[in-house]
Amino acid sequence: MRIDQLESPAAVVDLDKLSANINRLQSYLAEHNLANRPHIKTHKIPEIAHMQVDAGAVGITCQKLGEAEVMAQAGIKDIFLPYNLLGGAKLERLMHLARRVRISVTGDSEVTVRGYAEAAQGAGLALPVLVEFDTGLGRCGVQSPQEAAELARIIARASHLHFGGLMTYPSNEQTDGFVAETRRLLAADGIPLEVVSAGGSPGMWQAHTHKEVTEHRAGTYVYGDRSMVNVGVMSQAEVAFHVIATVVSRPTADRAVLDAGSKALSSDGARGSTGFGLILEYPEAHIEKLNEEHGWVDLTACAAKPQIGERVTLLVNHCCVTNNLFNEIVGHRNGEVEVNWPVAARGLLQ
Amino acid sequence: MRIDQLESPAAVVDLDKLSANINRLQSYLAEHNLANRPHIKTHKIPEIAHMQVDAGAVGITCQKLGEAEVMAQAGIKDIFLPYNLLGGAKLERLMHLARRVRISVTGDSEVTVRGYAEAAQGAGLALPVLVEFDTGLGRCGVQSPQEAAELARIIARASHLHFGGLMTYPSNEQTDGFVAETRRLLAADGIPLEVVSAGGSPGMWQAHTHKEVTEHRAGTYVYGDRSMVNVGVMSQAEVAFHVIATVVSRPTADRAVLDAGSKALSSDGARGSTGFGLILEYPEAHIEKLNEEHGWVDLTACAAKPQIGERVTLLVNHCCVTNNLFNEIVGHRNGEVEVNWPVAARGLLQ
Repeated sequence: MRIDQLESPAAVVDLDKLSANINRLQSYLAEHNLANRPHIKTHKIPEIAHMQVDAGAVGITCQKLGEAEVMAQAGIKDIFLPYNLLGGAKLERLMHLARRVRISVTGDSEVTVRGYAEAAQGAGLALPVLVEFDTGLGRCGVQSPQEAAELARIIARASHLHFGGLMTYPSNEQTDGFVAETRRLLAADGIPLEVVSAGGSPGMWQAHTHKEVTEHRAGTYVYGDRSMVNVGVMSQAEVAFHVIATVVSRPTADRAVLDAGSKALSSDGARGSTGFGLILEYPEAHIEKLNEEHGWVDLTACAAKPQIGERVTLLVNHCCVTNNLFNEIVGHRNGEVEVNWPVAARGLLQ
Repeated sequence: MRIDQLESPAAVVDLDKLSANINRLQSYLAEHNLANRPHIKTHKIPEIAHMQVDAGAVGITCQKLGEAEVMAQAGIKDIFLPYNLLGGAKLERLMHLARRVRISVTGDSEVTVRGYAEAAQGAGLALPVLVEFDTGLGRCGVQSPQEAAELARIIARASHLHFGGLMTYPSNEQTDGFVAETRRLLAADGIPLEVVSAGGSPGMWQAHTHKEVTEHRAGTYVYGDRSMVNVGVMSQAEVAFHVIATVVSRPTADRAVLDAGSKALSSDGARGSTGFGLILEYPEAHIEKLNEEHGWVDLTACAAKPQIGERVTLLVNHCCVTNNLFNEIVGHRNGEVEVNWPVAARGLLQ
């Protein structure tokens, strides 16, 4: 079957480009002696996670426990979960996972770390815990090297925890300084920094400039999207992921309506451009608005205009959230369908 | 089990409020002799669709064929699909459905209508087709009563189509004039307007003021959300749908981070307010930004501030897209869990 026979809207992945994206980042990170630990939030598909590991990744990154459970069930052996896990139910599931695969987590507070310590002690397991630090993003993470060192000491002292190092997102110009100062503070206690894990696709080709970082986590690079093209880290030709949509209405001379709305594409914008995706066949068209199942396209700037029933290919704003809205992703090679992947780890928010 | 024992983030529906919302709109529409045809896009759950039909709805509205298939399989007998369905594969599925349930569709172009005509003739079925018209929203729909009448005549003349009337979204002050003029144009041909279907939750309590309208389609009303409260059609106490989240980080005195981000809540805004939802326990808190699995909360305006591990209840911006991101919706009565509903028709974009 060809992808032009798929019912729309369809989310399709070019398998050759997917492999090329996986190999390109892997080669770059290997060249710079950086461990590669790709974030599976983008695809949530076990087979793609295995492709990443087979290419040389040391393991994967998941953002939610449910994702990690799916990946462990699919045979992934080394999972990093850089999230504060709180509450008895989640800690119990974490311990179940820790018996079967190597799983490491993060904390940015004593509350979180105490929970890990009690759970690991109760289970009789040694759990690696990294300290999350904030270098300006303003999301999670301890705010100073002093706080990082203090939390690291609590982890190192806990009988069933292992201090695994430091984690931040994204890598930036403050990362090295923060890490170096934390390292200095911990040296007095004889506590080493095994891993310094940083991440992000927008900054992936600068990963080697952060000399204190030992591991890079990137997610979006595997597919690519309009944001990645706009920030200049991938070319449009390298993007592996697209949504195929159909023009279902042409109510006026300058308007088209697509069968892909916010429930197919998400309402996320792209860095560096307006609208809700780029129509490859009509780059002058502007997807100006989305309703849940309708994409509103302004054709004013288009010389040629699509007809009712015509299929178009969308470079989406944000592939991670778009992928998350589809039940299945279709893998193809030169337009020939090879695989239908259920998005196995989607919707596992808990 | 109590909802405060559910792992977060969880999407919960108060079953008493859900019933009250269903009955309130049903009573109002019945009082005004308007048929009620609720839109299931909000919940995508067969049991809730049955509750709506049992309360007196004439049938349901679906936006995608896949949704209609799920609802037909669950025993719903009368489905309106107000969408231009194009292409052989979709028309074949439509005909399969039409053998099993009463299904009606819309078109806003001759291309769409010709497809219906051929498919219905091939299947030997009579398919009701309504003409979609635009009264200013600027999405789909014919632009003038003349176009509406012309398309209606094509439908009426087709051997296996039945002209079912007119459809628009949303109901507004131009609706009656458009319909009256179309009725006048068609009277000469002896073509009656059986159904005039209009819709929307924001305008639901004005449905009776559109004298030409015979049927109302509302979706969001069944749950309610921050937009509905802001536009004044529901009170906050009437909202049945909430997301329970946990504070997973308190990195600074004025910042909290929730375990619900854009993959739980969507990036949709609410009419009439900024931010990404209202925290009922901390109404002064501002959910200023979402990443995929993190909600960034500014606590500057809060006198009391939530602790790490504390659970909070979110009035979400847009319940339809939020519901669509969860695998399961938990139904409870006074906090006691009664049912876990799989969101059966989610992700069925084709």
